[in-house]
Amino acid sequence: MGVEALPRTIEWVPLDGADGVGGAMVRLVEQRALPARLEFWGVRSLDELIEAIQCLAVRGAPALGLAGAYGVCLAGVIALRDACSGGEAAASSLVAALEPQARRLAAARPTAVNLVWGVRQVMKVLRTASHRGDTARAALRAAIARAEGLAREDEEANRAIGAHGAALLPQGARVLTHCNAGSLACGFYGTALGVVYAAFEQGKLAHVYADETRPVGQGARLTMWELSRAGVPCTLQCDNMAASLMAAGQVDAVVVGADRIAANGDVANKVGTYPLAIAAAYHGVPFYVAAPTSTIDASLADGAGIPIEHRDAREVIDVDGFAPDVFNPAFDVTPAALIAGVVTERGVFQPAEVVRALEGR
Amino acid sequence: MGVEALPRTIEWVPLDGADGVGGAMVRLVEQRALPARLEFWGVRSLDELIEAIQCLAVRGAPALGLAGAYGVCLAGVIALRDACSGGEAAASSLVAALEPQARRLAAARPTAVNLVWGVRQVMKVLRTASHRGDTARAALRAAIARAEGLAREDEEANRAIGAHGAALLPQGARVLTHCNAGSLACGFYGTALGVVYAAFEQGKLAHVYADETRPVGQGARLTMWELSRAGVPCTLQCDNMAASLMAAGQVDAVVVGADRIAANGDVANKVGTYPLAIAAAYHGVPFYVAAPTSTIDASLADGAGIPIEHRDAREVIDVDGFAPDVFNPAFDVTPAALIAGVVTERGVFQPAEVVRALEGR
Repeated sequence: MGVEALPRTIEWVPLDGADGVGGAMVRLVEQRALPARLEFWGVRSLDELIEAIQCLAVRGAPALGLAGAYGVCLAGVIALRDACSGGEAAASSLVAALEPQARRLAAARPTAVNLVWGVRQVMKVLRTASHRGDTARAALRAAIARAEGLAREDEEANRAIGAHGAALLPQGARVLTHCNAGSLACGFYGTALGVVYAAFEQGKLAHVYADETRPVGQGARLTMWELSRAGVPCTLQCDNMAASLMAAGQVDAVVVGADRIAANGDVANKVGTYPLAIAAAYHGVPFYVAAPTSTIDASLADGAGIPIEHRDAREVIDVDGFAPDVFNPAFDVTPAALIAGVVTERGVFQPAEVVRALEGR
Repeated sequence: MGVEALPRTIEWVPLDGADGVGGAMVRLVEQRALPARLEFWGVRSLDELIEAIQCLAVRGAPALGLAGAYGVCLAGVIALRDACSGGEAAASSLVAALEPQARRLAAARPTAVNLVWGVRQVMKVLRTASHRGDTARAALRAAIARAEGLAREDEEANRAIGAHGAALLPQGARVLTHCNAGSLACGFYGTALGVVYAAFEQGKLAHVYADETRPVGQGARLTMWELSRAGVPCTLQCDNMAASLMAAGQVDAVVVGADRIAANGDVANKVGTYPLAIAAAYHGVPFYVAAPTSTIDASLADGAGIPIEHRDAREVIDVDGFAPDVFNPAFDVTPAALIAGVVTERGVFQPAEVVRALEGR
């Protein structure tokens, strides 16, 4: 019981008896198999990883950040293996080989900025090694160390988000959440559910109400699964029932994750977040966004600039099988004005001041 | 093409070559088979009709009103057939036999007041005949005539609702609706979709956005089917995507039906109506409720008194198959303050003045 009962969502698995430079795979929780069974996918190539990202076998902004980081490393391992010159070639040739693959990986899904961020973190290490004149092998070793460091930082950040967020909740809190911003959306522990787990560990959490999250059902399938596995009391409702719970006074706070936060505090997150924020404001229920600072995109003035992914109509009509035309955006944008606070690993920020969380990073 | 392409949702089918006193069935569109195929269910007993109501083979407040009226008639036909004395017995014995069955039918679903209303309309005719000293056969004949009259009045009311509602819409209107308040929710034509059909016939309707309507999918299955069959341009979205359409300026009005309207103008309707009304208010989009006056329950001061049906958890988890606990109310209550107007067959009323629509009825 407790959050320790949850699996690691995404891990680097060396197959060379060392750090993986000589062979490795990226092991993912295959999230499409949940809640029926806990299954892992050992990803061995960049194409496979891009497929896993696009089919939502791995999803969630922080987990996508790690997928971006590990993906570059995996591509590096393969490049080294395939190159005639092997690892003794210059790092610069490795960087040149990886640039187009990194671009392809970063573009696998458009909305979460963390994917691009994760790719960039590792490419930066490779470029620095290249400028230093390192061998390809040494550069890749440094890249893998950086990706592993990001995974450790992810968990630390989530635990810090949890602590900062739990402090905002009243004793006996009943929290409503949307989609899955849980351990399954990160390396481990969760952002919005990190707040839940921290409050649960402190004995101040009474209940979680989880939105089903149509059309893919991340709430029904993933949030309910991980909360149950961790022993957190929880109830599932359809997205359109959340307002009834608020009207009945059963919700003390709404806590959700984020896929990208613009400089003015506008937040892109799973579609359905925006109407939930409107309903929370109408009922005077505080609405918090919990996300690591890697989710903040200071280059965008506001939410209007965030690219929104539109997905296949079949996701919506698979249940009922009929519709000449379907509107299926995967995300929506919640204006900063509806958000009571953005909970990051560096503390809680007013949405309008969220870029301050990046200072000194 | 056009609304005339739609089937009658519920009909009295005499099997005696006359008005049905000597044998009849109630023919329903089997709505669980849509949109895959248009199927009818010939209902021959009261138990069968109650089953059809509870499993949602027939649903929608005005259609439930007709089901209540026809159901009493069907029970009467069976009572007459089974009684040793036959139709020449006194109407009073028929009334006595039908009283408990009428109560059972009226209680088949709790929220829509129209079901009770339909049962009462026909029981009133039977009681009047009984007081007059009519035979059971004559009383039943009058009851069937009343039920058939209600079906005609239903269509007339819907066409009047359509005309009053269409007048509220701008040229080129893009209307968003929730659940199915269409022809399939009535005898014919529809209430919220009556407004749509009238505007379409007048050439002023540009598009309909239909909420999927979790968990049963009346929007995805029924509204999309009937709009498509009638040739009305339409798009399906998940319930949680409606606010994104409003934010993008793609919705000129929201029009929904109602299952019960309290004296102060609070409206119970399919769950998801309430958050939609909140979102419409937030975006300055007018939110209209279209319903016949039979939906108004002047005996209830406000929406807090409306009984809300809670349905089986399996409706919610059938898609994703996992949840230790589920919240599944079939309806929610939208406060009068969020409603721009209630469109009845007698005109458009401010919610707070909706009981005026009952004057002189």
